[in-house]
Amino acid sequence: MCTEECLRQARTARVSRRAALLGAAAAGGGLALSAPASAAAPAAPLTGRRRGLQDLTYPLTTSFPSFADGEEARRRTYVTIEEDGYYMQEWRLVEHTGTHVDAPGHFTPGGRLSTELTLDELIVPAVVVDIAARAAGDPDAEVTVGDLRAFERRYGRIPRGAAVLMHSGWGAKVGSAAAYRGTDGDGVLHFPGFGADACEWLLEKRAVRSLGVDTLSIDPGRSEDFPVHVTLTGADRYGLENLANLASIPRHGATVVVGLLPFEEGSGGQARIFATW
Amino acid sequence: MCTEECLRQARTARVSRRAALLGAAAAGGGLALSAPASAAAPAAPLTGRRRGLQDLTYPLTTSFPSFADGEEARRRTYVTIEEDGYYMQEWRLVEHTGTHVDAPGHFTPGGRLSTELTLDELIVPAVVVDIAARAAGDPDAEVTVGDLRAFERRYGRIPRGAAVLMHSGWGAKVGSAAAYRGTDGDGVLHFPGFGADACEWLLEKRAVRSLGVDTLSIDPGRSEDFPVHVTLTGADRYGLENLANLASIPRHGATVVVGLLPFEEGSGGQARIFATW
Repeated sequence: MCTEECLRQARTARVSRRAALLGAAAAGGGLALSAPASAAAPAAPLTGRRRGLQDLTYPLTTSFPSFADGEEARRRTYVTIEEDGYYMQEWRLVEHTGTHVDAPGHFTPGGRLSTELTLDELIVPAVVVDIAARAAGDPDAEVTVGDLRAFERRYGRIPRGAAVLMHSGWGAKVGSAAAYRGTDGDGVLHFPGFGADACEWLLEKRAVRSLGVDTLSIDPGRSEDFPVHVTLTGADRYGLENLANLASIPRHGATVVVGLLPFEEGSGGQARIFATW
Repeated sequence: MCTEECLRQARTARVSRRAALLGAAAAGGGLALSAPASAAAPAAPLTGRRRGLQDLTYPLTTSFPSFADGEEARRRTYVTIEEDGYYMQEWRLVEHTGTHVDAPGHFTPGGRLSTELTLDELIVPAVVVDIAARAAGDPDAEVTVGDLRAFERRYGRIPRGAAVLMHSGWGAKVGSAAAYRGTDGDGVLHFPGFGADACEWLLEKRAVRSLGVDTLSIDPGRSEDFPVHVTLTGADRYGLENLANLASIPRHGATVVVGLLPFEEGSGGQARIFATW
């Protein structure tokens, strides 16, 4: 049923796919998805002025490190082309595995849930605060108010309604749950996150929309009482966790698009997240 | 830990939420998500030139009609704020429930899977072919080559690489699985879809990227051998099913953004899909 032209298109697409895979490998993308360098000219208006496009989403896999044991994604083949005519899988997902959103109701009683976050608040300006150099020597590194002031001296004021994204370099560890969690001998996790003071400063002084991280939690791993989660969701704002590729987007000037699945009564959940600029 | 300013922001957000809910109700949005009419000025560049933004995604619920019995989404509360300090749910999802993507590998052996579809092919020009008047009197209505030629006479040529979206008005039935499936006394489904000739014409003559529908399947409900699925995925293209709100976007000139979750070995899967123009 596929004509010569169909087949030609399919062949062309396969070449593009190979280019995409090579591009991702060349960029050291590892697990993370990457837009191919050879991408076709994009469509207007979303894409008409676009100079860059970068996926910030990890593939949703059963081996992706979870915050706690037992929260890993699971999958099984549900039907196959050979036996049933078409192929599909069945998944078991806890809402906070992989690249995902923390809705206000995740930590705040009565807070808004996944279906209540509007597209307008899921498409916002992004800034990236880079603490990778400090985090390389200190797994408990936090984004501080000093980091935010230093960012603004260099790049200008953080826009109202922005998503402020921490780049700690933690993505390099994502292939090992032990390394990504940083669990010590006492079972305490160690990975970077936002300091509570920085969170309050961003809400009070810059009216940000979201905080995002390239680690398992917007609070640092060793946190016991999750003050950043409590403060951020208490202000009706949302979090982004396990973001990929933050080193590959501009420190300021990008827009982040958070394609949150609208889970019924959802506490947040998996999302396709990308940046464009 | 929430300051006066935090509380003020939370109050403001709640007002916006109410406006969004009212807006959706006023538009007859029913189950479908809607951007609030009172939305704040959007961010550049994705949003700098934006005149419109419309969610095309249904909330992911356990009551959403599935193609076959047993494929409905299921959920349970996993932890609660009261007992565990935070709230989250656990889901069981078959990849083709609710608003979702059919990847080439859904029907074509060796076809590309969810993680292999690139962002560039998931952000494309959209056109909407409206057959709602005919479908109102005929649940087996199909998009024909004649419909496509009539569309082009009125709106101009369908752009290369576009997503061609069928609006049949079927969303009005989504509250009832029986009505949405249109199952007859012999167990045969009845709902509109693309004709096989129209699919071949769009691939051969217009090199489209995707076909999308506001029904359960890109093939009409009564189809026995799914020729549109076979032809489309055989050409390395993808489908979009259970789209919402297609009457609320321009017939031509919009861009559709398909926020597909990158399911490992995925045959497609749930996606947050929206249009902007």
